[in-house]
Amino acid sequence: MYLPYESTRTLLLHIFAAYGFDAEKSEGITDALLSADLCGIESHGIQRMIRYDDAIRRGMVDVNAVHEIVWETPLSAVIDARRAMGQTVSVAAMNLAIQKAQKCGIGMVGVRNSNHFGIAGYYARMASAQGMIGVAMTNSEAIMVPTNSRRAMLGTNPIALAAPADPVDFCFDAATTVVTRGKLEVYNKAEERTPDGWILDADGEESTDPGQVIRNIIARAGGGILPLGGACEVTGGHKGYGFGMICELFTSVLSGGPPSYLSYQEPDTADTSHYFMAIDLAMFGPPDDIRTRLSSLLDDMRAATPAKEGLRVYVHGEKEVEFAKTVHRDGIPVNQKTVAELREIAARLHIPSHEIPEVSE
Amino acid sequence: MYLPYESTRTLLLHIFAAYGFDAEKSEGITDALLSADLCGIESHGIQRMIRYDDAIRRGMVDVNAVHEIVWETPLSAVIDARRAMGQTVSVAAMNLAIQKAQKCGIGMVGVRNSNHFGIAGYYARMASAQGMIGVAMTNSEAIMVPTNSRRAMLGTNPIALAAPADPVDFCFDAATTVVTRGKLEVYNKAEERTPDGWILDADGEESTDPGQVIRNIIARAGGGILPLGGACEVTGGHKGYGFGMICELFTSVLSGGPPSYLSYQEPDTADTSHYFMAIDLAMFGPPDDIRTRLSSLLDDMRAATPAKEGLRVYVHGEKEVEFAKTVHRDGIPVNQKTVAELREIAARLHIPSHEIPEVSE
Repeated sequence: MYLPYESTRTLLLHIFAAYGFDAEKSEGITDALLSADLCGIESHGIQRMIRYDDAIRRGMVDVNAVHEIVWETPLSAVIDARRAMGQTVSVAAMNLAIQKAQKCGIGMVGVRNSNHFGIAGYYARMASAQGMIGVAMTNSEAIMVPTNSRRAMLGTNPIALAAPADPVDFCFDAATTVVTRGKLEVYNKAEERTPDGWILDADGEESTDPGQVIRNIIARAGGGILPLGGACEVTGGHKGYGFGMICELFTSVLSGGPPSYLSYQEPDTADTSHYFMAIDLAMFGPPDDIRTRLSSLLDDMRAATPAKEGLRVYVHGEKEVEFAKTVHRDGIPVNQKTVAELREIAARLHIPSHEIPEVSE
Repeated sequence: MYLPYESTRTLLLHIFAAYGFDAEKSEGITDALLSADLCGIESHGIQRMIRYDDAIRRGMVDVNAVHEIVWETPLSAVIDARRAMGQTVSVAAMNLAIQKAQKCGIGMVGVRNSNHFGIAGYYARMASAQGMIGVAMTNSEAIMVPTNSRRAMLGTNPIALAAPADPVDFCFDAATTVVTRGKLEVYNKAEERTPDGWILDADGEESTDPGQVIRNIIARAGGGILPLGGACEVTGGHKGYGFGMICELFTSVLSGGPPSYLSYQEPDTADTSHYFMAIDLAMFGPPDDIRTRLSSLLDDMRAATPAKEGLRVYVHGEKEVEFAKTVHRDGIPVNQKTVAELREIAARLHIPSHEIPEVSE
């Protein structure tokens, strides 16, 4: 099932306006949210509307929040989000980083007391669209077990980095866990076992039972998702754990928010931390030269001999751009449940039914 | 077998002086080199002297090189190493980054036309020893096959990040391949099969034969080492590949050196690229507060429930500091071959035999 892109976007603008966000914020949230659907990251797109709706109704997200810059230098800032919608404060924070980079060469902005911000890559791409290197990270509820531990301590702790290139910007965006909780939920719904090397049960044993591990994560009963690299040092699990720590350092440690394992302790707490950075290419030479060198690197990677006939070597960010074209053409792939949830939200907010887009098969 | 630390250090100072390096450079190279032995990374320590000796004699390393700053802003620089010893120009580059960070809040320095610089963590720790966040990266000869390819395109492309903490600085230092070539060589010498998920043969098939893959890498016959995360997207191989790309972007793309797959094409070419960054903690708040928060995060990670009784949860950088204590006490662990090589080098350079330390068992 598919929802047409443009009219779904219009619906979301109405929904966020109905919650009380002004036009600019509604647009920022909507575009950040839909960027996940455009990238094919369903877990972070409109499928998640029901959770944002819940957070707004419970007051975990404060629609009227005015975020505050609590520390600032010409190159950097720390923002207290004051429970703002994650997307709203994150767009503002990356814009501040870009402005600082335009003036000084680099901009670094930490955020605390925020909410889920969607996909990190969206903010990194804001900088690459301005011809800069962009970095975005966030911590989250504890879900990653460090190497040799069975307690979930770090979040999925994604790291995104985008850089300008032709024909398509480079954009890396990855959880530092081997997979996200969303992937476990897909396996759980399909009643399938997960591959080896993904999850640990409450006793610290490797598991392939996604349902049990999700329940344990929610109940904080022990176990969780393994770092990129898997359970042990032989396969490099300590490296994924290390990248997760780097994310935690740049998000909660620098901005003064609680680390992942101390966040989300109360049901209505908004205490997620983010980090945004923009770097002007002119720090390292004529920007056009650097852009040309990166484009040429990406071309060469794409042309590298495939491991087997028929396989394609991708560079990071191009799958997403290709997927976006199919979404604009065919609509956003959705399931029945998501459509029903969107209809329920729209009806509750008294949005006229003709604003609700028709589903196509 | 062990070599006493202090007298080995003295021997290396004599050796580098005999090549023609001045006292300051000899000390810089020696300490960078020995830092690998102190960390327990034997492959990058004195075991590698024979390769540095070869590079110096062949002129791949120019002992008299004067590196040149070819691009500079208050926050950044690009250095042409002009075939300098990797350690010499890297110490200078990180010192420049630290000076810029002390003045402006951040310093970012790219280097091109350099040689092997040893372990990345050494340079990252130079910044954390000054109370700053330090980052160091390098590209290298092509050894990593991108996801879905069987051609080695990227280097081991290590990323190191250190940050000040008590009692021990955080220091992450990892190849973005699942393992380094050094690890394959250890398995090969022991005539053992490597674990699954490490290497690919020339036909693009997963392999466990380290000897064959090493020969293929040297002959550029195809195949190589897999990225962190292994061969496919299911285990996150595209993420390790992405971190390798980030390293390539910050090293060769920003500094204007050739990418890994175009470097080391001629036997005597010195065209390795590095990247160094130092960030003043005061960009984000009172530095002592940030240091305290990081120390407390690391304490909590160490105290996380072990997966099984008897396992210990490490934070990155502490194993190395503990290992250094045993090296200072018991000496540097070496094998017969390394000792013979050091003796041969010392004799050739007419270093008096009483300067050559005695081996203990």
